[in-house]
Amino acid sequence: MKDSLIVFSGGMDSTTMLYEYQERIALAVTFDYGSLQNAEERKFAVMHCARLGIKHIVVPMDFMRRHFKSALLSSPDDIPTDEYNESNMKSTVVPFRNGIMLSVAAGIAESNGLGRVMIANHSGDHAVYPDCRPGFVKAMSEAVRNGTYNAVEVFAPYTNIDKAAIARRGLGLGLDYSETYSCYKGGKVHCGACATCRERRAALAAAGINDTTVYESA
Amino acid sequence: MKDSLIVFSGGMDSTTMLYEYQERIALAVTFDYGSLQNAEERKFAVMHCARLGIKHIVVPMDFMRRHFKSALLSSPDDIPTDEYNESNMKSTVVPFRNGIMLSVAAGIAESNGLGRVMIANHSGDHAVYPDCRPGFVKAMSEAVRNGTYNAVEVFAPYTNIDKAAIARRGLGLGLDYSETYSCYKGGKVHCGACATCRERRAALAAAGINDTTVYESA
Repeated sequence: MKDSLIVFSGGMDSTTMLYEYQERIALAVTFDYGSLQNAEERKFAVMHCARLGIKHIVVPMDFMRRHFKSALLSSPDDIPTDEYNESNMKSTVVPFRNGIMLSVAAGIAESNGLGRVMIANHSGDHAVYPDCRPGFVKAMSEAVRNGTYNAVEVFAPYTNIDKAAIARRGLGLGLDYSETYSCYKGGKVHCGACATCRERRAALAAAGINDTTVYESA
Repeated sequence: MKDSLIVFSGGMDSTTMLYEYQERIALAVTFDYGSLQNAEERKFAVMHCARLGIKHIVVPMDFMRRHFKSALLSSPDDIPTDEYNESNMKSTVVPFRNGIMLSVAAGIAESNGLGRVMIANHSGDHAVYPDCRPGFVKAMSEAVRNGTYNAVEVFAPYTNIDKAAIARRGLGLGLDYSETYSCYKGGKVHCGACATCRERRAALAAAGINDTTVYESA
């Protein structure tokens, strides 16, 4: 039964979710909120949806670049290149990003008769991003259920697992993670040094995956 | 202390709120989601903010007209002209509209160091619009609080009063409601016959206000 919409960036996490739950997904929605990595991620988003025969739309959110403050909406030089942790990554927070994406996704789902929206937030982001934590997900799920005619459900099954565990699921599904994009600097090739590239490499290594991604820096 | 952002359309309810809480309002945000009444409402929104010296921005949400289904985003001929009640007005629901506006407002508030977002939903809309009800407001408030670094608060003090009670507050504040716009058909002059014009007229009458709005039909 195809009853679900997925918030889909083309990164490791949502790509894993797309393949894991493909039987249920009627529509994939990519939000273009002007972040540095959007353009490169989106190429993979388009490719995976075409491969699986899943309808895909891109929703432009130009107002976010204009009215929101975040290093991620600014310049590659503002992206932290140290370890992926709270103090380094706080500057990359796009305020309430997951709340905004889930809200718009809920409205599109209801407009299209779909009863569920999926999002691939995970536990590795809890320290950095408040809108990835279980308390947010629980309250937002209730808001979406209460605020829609058809009681749309939020489905966030990776909330309590980390990126390495997601990669292990992908390994089981036969995914090739070189067909995903993570770098917050947004270059054609992963820089390999920014905090998000470090997080990606660590997760793939922890999952025992031979990482064939091309990185600028070893 | 100016610590708040208001979701401000230029209609009766949010205009009353703008005047009632003007001391606390640092920023007024009008969402242009392509509804029929947006253009006429917005003229009043601009005027009131200029009069009170409150910064005002318009946030375009073009994607809603494209991806959402609602009579309100369609044609004046689709707007119901009977009594304002659930069965008539259901076609005008813009799915999860208040969730979307509150989410974006929360992100803009956090980006601007503001701790509170205000919205003027009221009890007269509970039957028609799920995202105006207390259960939605409570869950959404918790989602916004949990999902932002600075625990942004949602303030919706009209949730349990109706439009006539709002009009009585406006009367006490000396508001001239002919400087607000309500008609869902979106003409230069209020049609006077659509369900939203009927609701407006009934509220002003119930509040004992001499309604100087110009209506096309008596």
